[in-house]
Amino acid sequence: MKRSMTQLAKLGAAAALAAFVAAAPASAEGDKVGKSPWGPKDEIGTLNMMSDASRMEILQRIDAGKVYDLGLDLFVGMPDCCSAAFGDPTYQMYMLHTPARGGGGEELVSHSSEAISMNTHTGTHIDTLSHFGLHGKLFNGASADEALGARGWAKSGADKYPPIVARGVMIDVAKAKGVDVLPASYAITVDDLKDALAKQGTKLAEGDVVLVRTGQMGLWPDRSKLSLFTQSGLSLEAAKWLAEERKSMVLGADNLGLESFPSTNPQNFAPVHSYLLAEKGVSFIELLWLEELSKDEVYEFAFITSPLKLRGATGSPIRPVAIPVK
Amino acid sequence: MKRSMTQLAKLGAAAALAAFVAAAPASAEGDKVGKSPWGPKDEIGTLNMMSDASRMEILQRIDAGKVYDLGLDLFVGMPDCCSAAFGDPTYQMYMLHTPARGGGGEELVSHSSEAISMNTHTGTHIDTLSHFGLHGKLFNGASADEALGARGWAKSGADKYPPIVARGVMIDVAKAKGVDVLPASYAITVDDLKDALAKQGTKLAEGDVVLVRTGQMGLWPDRSKLSLFTQSGLSLEAAKWLAEERKSMVLGADNLGLESFPSTNPQNFAPVHSYLLAEKGVSFIELLWLEELSKDEVYEFAFITSPLKLRGATGSPIRPVAIPVK
Amino acid sequence: MKRSMTQLAKLGAAAALAAFVAAAPASAEGDKVGKSPWGPKDEIGTLNMMSDASRMEILQRIDAGKVYDLGLDLFVGMPDCCSAAFGDPTYQMYMLHTPARGGGGEELVSHSSEAISMNTHTGTHIDTLSHFGLHGKLFNGASADEALGARGWAKSGADKYPPIVARGVMIDVAKAKGVDVLPASYAITVDDLKDALAKQGTKLAEGDVVLVRTGQMGLWPDRSKLSLFTQSGLSLEAAKWLAEERKSMVLGADNLGLESFPSTNPQNFAPVHSYLLAEKGVSFIELLWLEELSKDEVYEFAFITSPLKLRGATGSPIRPVAIPVK
Amino acid sequence: MKRSMTQLAKLGAAAALAAFVAAAPASAEGDKVGKSPWGPKDEIGTLNMMSDASRMEILQRIDAGKVYDLGLDLFVGMPDCCSAAFGDPTYQMYMLHTPARGGGGEELVSHSSEAISMNTHTGTHIDTLSHFGLHGKLFNGASADEALGARGWAKSGADKYPPIVARGVMIDVAKAKGVDVLPASYAITVDDLKDALAKQGTKLAEGDVVLVRTGQMGLWPDRSKLSLFTQSGLSLEAAKWLAEERKSMVLGADNLGLESFPSTNPQNFAPVHSYLLAEKGVSFIELLWLEELSKDEVYEFAFITSPLKLRGATGSPIRPVAIPVK
Repeated sequence: MKRSMTQLAKLGAAAALAAFVAAAPASAEGDKVGKSPWGPKDEIGTLNMMSDASRMEILQRIDAGKVYDLGLDLFVGMPDCCSAAFGDPTYQMYMLHTPARGGGGEELVSHSSEAISMNTHTGTHIDTLSHFGLHGKLFNGASADEALGARGWAKSGADKYPPIVARGVMIDVAKAKGVDVLPASYAITVDDLKDALAKQGTKLAEGDVVLVRTGQMGLWPDRSKLSLFTQSGLSLEAAKWLAEERKSMVLGADNLGLESFPSTNPQNFAPVHSYLLAEKGVSFIELLWLEELSKDEVYEFAFITSPLKLRGATGSPIRPVAIPVK
Repeated sequence: MKRSMTQLAKLGAAAALAAFVAAAPASAEGDKVGKSPWGPKDEIGTLNMMSDASRMEILQRIDAGKVYDLGLDLFVGMPDCCSAAFGDPTYQMYMLHTPARGGGGEELVSHSSEAISMNTHTGTHIDTLSHFGLHGKLFNGASADEALGARGWAKSGADKYPPIVARGVMIDVAKAKGVDVLPASYAITVDDLKDALAKQGTKLAEGDVVLVRTGQMGLWPDRSKLSLFTQSGLSLEAAKWLAEERKSMVLGADNLGLESFPSTNPQNFAPVHSYLLAEKGVSFIELLWLEELSKDEVYEFAFITSPLKLRGATGSPIRPVAIPVK
Repeated sequence: MKRSMTQLAKLGAAAALAAFVAAAPASAEGDKVGKSPWGPKDEIGTLNMMSDASRMEILQRIDAGKVYDLGLDLFVGMPDCCSAAFGDPTYQMYMLHTPARGGGGEELVSHSSEAISMNTHTGTHIDTLSHFGLHGKLFNGASADEALGARGWAKSGADKYPPIVARGVMIDVAKAKGVDVLPASYAITVDDLKDALAKQGTKLAEGDVVLVRTGQMGLWPDRSKLSLFTQSGLSLEAAKWLAEERKSMVLGADNLGLESFPSTNPQNFAPVHSYLLAEKGVSFIELLWLEELSKDEVYEFAFITSPLKLRGATGSPIRPVAIPVK
Repeated sequence: MKRSMTQLAKLGAAAALAAFVAAAPASAEGDKVGKSPWGPKDEIGTLNMMSDASRMEILQRIDAGKVYDLGLDLFVGMPDCCSAAFGDPTYQMYMLHTPARGGGGEELVSHSSEAISMNTHTGTHIDTLSHFGLHGKLFNGASADEALGARGWAKSGADKYPPIVARGVMIDVAKAKGVDVLPASYAITVDDLKDALAKQGTKLAEGDVVLVRTGQMGLWPDRSKLSLFTQSGLSLEAAKWLAEERKSMVLGADNLGLESFPSTNPQNFAPVHSYLLAEKGVSFIELLWLEELSKDEVYEFAFITSPLKLRGATGSPIRPVAIPVK
């Protein structure tokens, strides 16, 4: 990261980056990408846990046809992780065609359309395994030198991702702790997760999509209160517990970047990102809207979403749904 | 349309438009927008047909957890409806961050991300009711003068659209006619639909998502063979039969623009668009991938998709799934 | 402005706008667009003052071939007038093609290119007469209903602008007042201009390009210190004196938006903009780099710049030069 | 090029590229980047030939203040080198703010602005030394591994380029040959240049900006007739003669890509580009509008242009002017 950050700094967003990125020495614990148990050609990691049987198991438990919408609105001026921090582009929508002006009465057919322009990590979105690597390599070994072209990755892009249909579990940490929102930069512990699961009476199973609620969406869409740099989120230990002990398939949270920031590891500015994506092959979802699930105390559901097949992309906007099960 | 086309022509894409757009006189049969039976505040038309009960009815019939992916890949250089024809922007993806060059070994964390830029009517997508109006008004009466801002519509935008969970039916017209692909500009008739339904043994019901297969996706992604101007698709009569007789909720097809082009009505260059969206409040989906459904002869399924909530947009890219039912 | 601001607010940037825009009642002093003395077809206003003779007069006085560069760098993360304030897009540059990674030694030809995306009012730029109107009309009467298409203005776009070659005069108000930079929101008076001209021994002439220095570029590129909302700049009286008494052809300043903000007129949030562009047909230049001219005490020069002929645009990035004269 | 083209091909524009790019073996004549005679820190090559004296020499010869505009309009739907060929983005302009609809009479201030999005090699533009290298290195030795970040080059970007004020010479090859336009793919020879110079009575001098007219702008803006792949332009020998024998500072032409295409060298798909930019440090200008100069038989002039300082860019749109001299 060191050099690319230097290069970026020369290109303009130096100050914010300096505050954000810790030094990244050449060697550190957990500095090797993982090898996929699904073979040398695997590009999607734990998503391989899905099968017709796993999907059927949760779909047949659907209870009443009520659908919870877990996706955010996308609009000009919306908060995002990275525009102020990194100089990344903001969400934009532009009209391409509009009905004629001048009263509008004189034309038969009135045709409108528009273009959008956005960071793929804007709004509710999934991070693919190409989003973070270690030492220039992705999970399962593909290197930037071999697999990164000018316009995207030949490996682990969003186009390789299947639709996701799985058991979903929401862990309402904020509610379990009796707060509207966790404190700034709070790092959720394994005990926090266990405690919340116990209070809400939910058990995790292999292959789950596990969504963690911090309460930060109660602040949406106030840009002054939603900063990547000070967000609460998963600790590395909690991520490890979910990935290794509970064998979760996909993680998610109602914040801008899943994990607690800033990192406490001076060698890695985003240790949960690199651990999950590069070491373990676990994809995750950010900026989830979990407020209705929380209000209705719905902790278990069929989770359904389909990443757009953006060829070579490290992420995709999505709008997942949760359908309660019996 | 006349004036806005003239204005657009001045701005550059005159020749193609001249070939495409028929004259649009001030008065014609079917020239008034419809009034919603769901009340004066309705912005989504027939999508109001969905209920917990309607969703539950199809979800409980899910058979085996197999998922058909109905969405196309999105990539630089992909075919689209409107870039050559109207000068509209093509699909683009740009890298924002990449791992440092130079061997890649010296940096711990390797971070990549990208931006996309696209016409919302690119790839598999849904057209919302704001996409086409008549005389400057949308279905249910909102006018461009009142509801169209510089950056989108305050009415009937994709952000107003619910997730769609409904019974889906695929009508395989190409297979029923024994061809790989329907002839250029072929307009599918009511009899074509009835004949195909009879051959495949499927019955339509109120509230269905009805997807029509022309076979054109067999040509994907050959840009030289996929042109909006000469595509086969629904005739106005067939669209009317589906909307009025069969009370379908949403329509769709495996082509660039649902209906047969060019229009045979000199007064309206897209009569099915304006009929469905502006008169009847029926949304529809374009560029569906129906090839696997056709190959496996899957004609009935749970259809699930969630338009991205792009505020004020006339369309949204989607990636629907079809899950067979018993 | 009222309604479009409301519409924009719905689309997302409400809070900032509310702080910025004063109420705009339907009638006010100075609320009618001007009629051009250069005839009903004129779209460029005072730029008609240029002639071969006027250009020759200044060009033949060029002294020594030294060129002052008055343009700013454009870079990702640069300050701008309008991204934070209005949700407008920031300056972006994206790579389209890059040399292969992996050591770079194995390929003969290494080809790079890139795309840019920007508000045309970013960096050093000229505002054309289509940028501000009154009651939906531009200088010389063209109305939005008749001349504004989905993709730009048919009247007074940057494509209509000639290259500008004229006598330039820099008025160093900051230096005359003995300060590095004028106070926040300071409104430069007619006396300030007269005093500075007297101190520097410069006389204005008809047809001049008059550039006013506030000293704010000493803060460039610190985004936290360069805000449109609190910038010093011309008062309406000073603008009137330059346009009407001194018959200047083009104005300019080293700030984000020429005039002092916020406006003291509750009926008009940008009275100098609407006065110069809509009433008087005077174009102007923002974000000029005048630091070297100031340091070298160069107050008179040949001013040369060419707006990009962006069809229908309300502004264009430029990089003017000043060449001292004897 | 081989690998990056392969990568690009995977990302979508394979067919066009295959027709365009010849094989590029690892070693070939002329395969090493040049070393600058202006020292190890030089990034702009022959532009160092400019001095106050060289500028003054041409400026003092200006004759009558007439200005020729050598820049093209930029508009939605305009022809370009690379959108169809490489999947590169087309020129786009989008409105950001517009006066309220609805008659437009009720608002005082009517504010419009827009964004543009474009390949920097669109319209009249200059190619900088970072546009083409050899074996991953630029002129004077900077390597992609060291100097290319995700968002541009740290070396030889357009931001390093000075305003250009120099003697300009137009060589009207089409006129000398008595044709409106040179034949498709015609490669202009040294004799063609000498013959045209003799016929028009012009002599070249060291440090000139030399603009070559093929007549192709007579076809502008017909996209069906303006193709990079079949354009006439400079032969490698003619480029060498201008750069080495005549010591020209900058070259230019009225075509999409300076040189004749396709290349006759199977080892290099753009040998004039790599020769001038990577071996000799000579920048050049494409898509010049030379029609008025030709009609008026103006062959010698002061040439003035200022590339936009796009940080790290391999090119910049420009709008040069030519002012005749005595």
